[in-house]
Amino acid sequence: MTSNFSKMVEGSRKMVSLLFVLSLFSALSDAKLSVTPTKGVPWPMPMDYKTTGKQNTVDAASFRFTTRSVECDILLDAYVRYREAIFGRNADRFHAMRQSPKFVQMFSQEGDIGEVSVDVSKPCQGSYPSLESDESYSLSVANGQVMISAQEVWGALWGLETFVQLVYKSDTGEYVVNDTIISDKPRFAHRGLLLDTSRHFLSTRNLLRNLDAMAQNKLNVFHWHIVDDQSFPYESMAFPELSSKGSYFPESQVYTPTDVAEVIEFARLRGIRVVAEFDSPGHTQSWGLGQKGFLTECYSGEKPDGSYGPADPTLNTTFPFLKQFFAEVASVFPDQYIHLGGDEVSFTCWQSNPVIKDFMQKMSYGTNYAKLEEYYMQNLLDIINSLKRGYIIWQEVIDNGAKVRPDTVVEVWKGGWEEEMEKVTKQGYKTLLASCWYLNYISYGSDWTTYYTCDPQKFNGTDAQKALVMGGELTMWGEYVDDTNVLSRLWPRASAVAERLWSPQDVNFPLVAQPRLIEQRCRMIRRGIPAEPVTGPGTCPVEYREP
Amino acid sequence: MTSNFSKMVEGSRKMVSLLFVLSLFSALSDAKLSVTPTKGVPWPMPMDYKTTGKQNTVDAASFRFTTRSVECDILLDAYVRYREAIFGRNADRFHAMRQSPKFVQMFSQEGDIGEVSVDVSKPCQGSYPSLESDESYSLSVANGQVMISAQEVWGALWGLETFVQLVYKSDTGEYVVNDTIISDKPRFAHRGLLLDTSRHFLSTRNLLRNLDAMAQNKLNVFHWHIVDDQSFPYESMAFPELSSKGSYFPESQVYTPTDVAEVIEFARLRGIRVVAEFDSPGHTQSWGLGQKGFLTECYSGEKPDGSYGPADPTLNTTFPFLKQFFAEVASVFPDQYIHLGGDEVSFTCWQSNPVIKDFMQKMSYGTNYAKLEEYYMQNLLDIINSLKRGYIIWQEVIDNGAKVRPDTVVEVWKGGWEEEMEKVTKQGYKTLLASCWYLNYISYGSDWTTYYTCDPQKFNGTDAQKALVMGGELTMWGEYVDDTNVLSRLWPRASAVAERLWSPQDVNFPLVAQPRLIEQRCRMIRRGIPAEPVTGPGTCPVEYREP
Repeated sequence: MTSNFSKMVEGSRKMVSLLFVLSLFSALSDAKLSVTPTKGVPWPMPMDYKTTGKQNTVDAASFRFTTRSVECDILLDAYVRYREAIFGRNADRFHAMRQSPKFVQMFSQEGDIGEVSVDVSKPCQGSYPSLESDESYSLSVANGQVMISAQEVWGALWGLETFVQLVYKSDTGEYVVNDTIISDKPRFAHRGLLLDTSRHFLSTRNLLRNLDAMAQNKLNVFHWHIVDDQSFPYESMAFPELSSKGSYFPESQVYTPTDVAEVIEFARLRGIRVVAEFDSPGHTQSWGLGQKGFLTECYSGEKPDGSYGPADPTLNTTFPFLKQFFAEVASVFPDQYIHLGGDEVSFTCWQSNPVIKDFMQKMSYGTNYAKLEEYYMQNLLDIINSLKRGYIIWQEVIDNGAKVRPDTVVEVWKGGWEEEMEKVTKQGYKTLLASCWYLNYISYGSDWTTYYTCDPQKFNGTDAQKALVMGGELTMWGEYVDDTNVLSRLWPRASAVAERLWSPQDVNFPLVAQPRLIEQRCRMIRRGIPAEPVTGPGTCPVEYREP
Repeated sequence: MTSNFSKMVEGSRKMVSLLFVLSLFSALSDAKLSVTPTKGVPWPMPMDYKTTGKQNTVDAASFRFTTRSVECDILLDAYVRYREAIFGRNADRFHAMRQSPKFVQMFSQEGDIGEVSVDVSKPCQGSYPSLESDESYSLSVANGQVMISAQEVWGALWGLETFVQLVYKSDTGEYVVNDTIISDKPRFAHRGLLLDTSRHFLSTRNLLRNLDAMAQNKLNVFHWHIVDDQSFPYESMAFPELSSKGSYFPESQVYTPTDVAEVIEFARLRGIRVVAEFDSPGHTQSWGLGQKGFLTECYSGEKPDGSYGPADPTLNTTFPFLKQFFAEVASVFPDQYIHLGGDEVSFTCWQSNPVIKDFMQKMSYGTNYAKLEEYYMQNLLDIINSLKRGYIIWQEVIDNGAKVRPDTVVEVWKGGWEEEMEKVTKQGYKTLLASCWYLNYISYGSDWTTYYTCDPQKFNGTDAQKALVMGGELTMWGEYVDDTNVLSRLWPRASAVAERLWSPQDVNFPLVAQPRLIEQRCRMIRRGIPAEPVTGPGTCPVEYREP
């Protein structure tokens, strides 16, 4: 395997970058004025990527994935999926073509790839991914031989995804793969995407399609901001009224236990964790519709005015309810982490309520309502602790000084994030950055470049502090997205974040990335995702058609 | 018909507006924080609209449209379409329900609407709409009787659209229509939507879906910016190389004569004109690929540098080619107007070319290249004149002083539009406004309100000048849209423009329009258009699902 690659000088990562820049300039004289996309170059860029111009044809007729050392449900499912990803709906037609004498004459069979050999060291039947997953893999394509090897199945999955991306159509219409050697692993362990299913409902079908898109970009955490003020679509077994009264339409716009299980399994098979967020004590208006007595009654003068504020920490029903509710959540969502929210708690309603005022006095909090918020969060954190789960929280919880477990992950979402990252990591917490990647905000033109150039470790801090950065998350808050536009608004803008979180720090020039991003967009379209144009005029060989 | 409506005090247009505002305030105390949408109120708002709370049920089993005085292909097609628009895919299930005793027991049959009677005065078999179409209609719903009457079929079509929008589901799930009297006609005769199929290709299928969406909002001109610098997808019969060499993919990304005919017929059946734009002499890079010698050769020093500029007006082949080409265009597109473009002509290349320089000298133009542009446009206008067609042109042509036919329509697209509208109408030209409605530009939030509040007659000028404003056009330039996102990006933002161009000038408060816009969006979703959320959190009873 080594000697065959001694001549691989044209294709190192940096050389490829240079070629891209040159092709950009040559494209300027093209009458169609568009940048020439790459062919068969992966997104996100692997850590080490060497390739030559030597093409191997793919033999569709005999093509198969094989595993030597291990049997695994995840791999078997992936093989079916990735075969279709390469050959699409044309697989059968392609097969037929190969039988014709003209076709056989046109392409030599020698050197063709009929097999992709996958080697995984550890058993993986029924595995679920975690923050500690080993996602590394190596991949070689040479003389018609393809080998993918990984310690864990998660790395093997990414190796398969990369291999599929190496396949492209030659000028004569044949599926080909260039000789390539890749050694790859992610820069960050947590590469998340947040969807908000409360401001608008999103169908389970689109959640699954989005998981497919995430896998195509090696994102590995679906942060499911499942409920919020506006609606409560999570169907709880213990508290069915939460959704029957708190969802927009309990008949059609809820996630049943079956839906949730389907999302989790679909994600697991793609190496994606599902981290559910049940945000409290603020952002809980919809909880109040199905769980009477959970929210604080707001007062106008001496009487309740009919409106409600955050959860009421003073009632003796609040924490027993939360304990039972989160016990269910922990049983439904297998991930080691639960996202507890904790952001944007307004004190106005608490301040108006006489019972709360008494409680504040009793606890000697004075008028410091941040203390009351801390009290609430501390009780909730203790509950999650007792369930043997870790938690992710928005930055306010730390800012307000709550005592949290040492393995807590803190998510930074506000502006001035460099200072906040410095502060949170100084306290020794694992940290995620979201501030740079609020993809719900839109503006005209190629805004992906701003997401692409934000580096989550670019803040003042020691190496130990930097090492506490687990990665980041892009967010798609739901005020202005629903099933009509969520996928096209996310992709391929989210791909820019995905590369930032996966690839080496020095892979960071938008102009260099652009031809590869165009290829990635067209690849996603071919695989059923309506990834919108983000680099100006152009086209894809296969345009999107609704499935 | 008069006496039955003597009590219609609750539902005049202004009263309805007031009720909306009140409902907005009451909605603020709703835990789900969303504005309550209207039920069965049309978009755009008719000129005169009176309604009561008296509901008539719709009898799905016997429901039919009937025409008394006239046979007409357009109406017959509309009846099929609008029956489906009311009952959707549930029509059969609904029919079955009505047979069950329980159902019959539940709903009284009295007062049910089984027939919509349509009366059109003028023959309309095979008609094609025009700038002079009479689009007025009247509509009454009372005691289970529905009558739509119009001078021309175009008004009848809009009456049918309005009727369908009056139908809504009652709290008990029955299709109902309130007693209503409408007298309606558009404020402006030209209500256009521009799609650009050159920067990105758009499938014929999505062009047709967009025509459906236009009809749902009473827009009546599809401005088809069909070719531009980036690609030439129009398949010409006389000059097939224009698309075989100038399109992105001649196999899949062109509009064949069949495609074009399908678009025109689909539009005609919906009362929509198709105005094709073949923009020249600038914006023509893609023409040069299939029509050698049409574009100006740019020089670097004394030699051509391989790049090309605008059309070359000095060659004796240029105008014969244009004459033949536009003769074909005139035979393919039945509309009385052709859009000739004429915008953004760069002089740099002309200035570099020695032959052009000689020509400038010969014509005594000095160095005033605007004269050369005028020369080109004048020749082109004469050609269109000889084809007995009118033309629409971008404002530059007038700014540059070309002599144009008195019935020319000038389209204003640049900033400072108030001054330009004043200037163009002072010269006596019919005028269209586009400047306010560049919907390709996007920003976060409810940007529809800015489109909604731009009034095309709000400039300094006499009544005679104001009367020259034919209407306006919203544009969706194609740099960042293709089949993945064009419909969701257009709708319902384009609905805001549609109401501005149809409804009386004083229907112009976004806060009042919002509950109706939400209903319109949900109605469009139910009818297959992925209209995105534009008013913040909320939901539709039926969420969008890709067809």
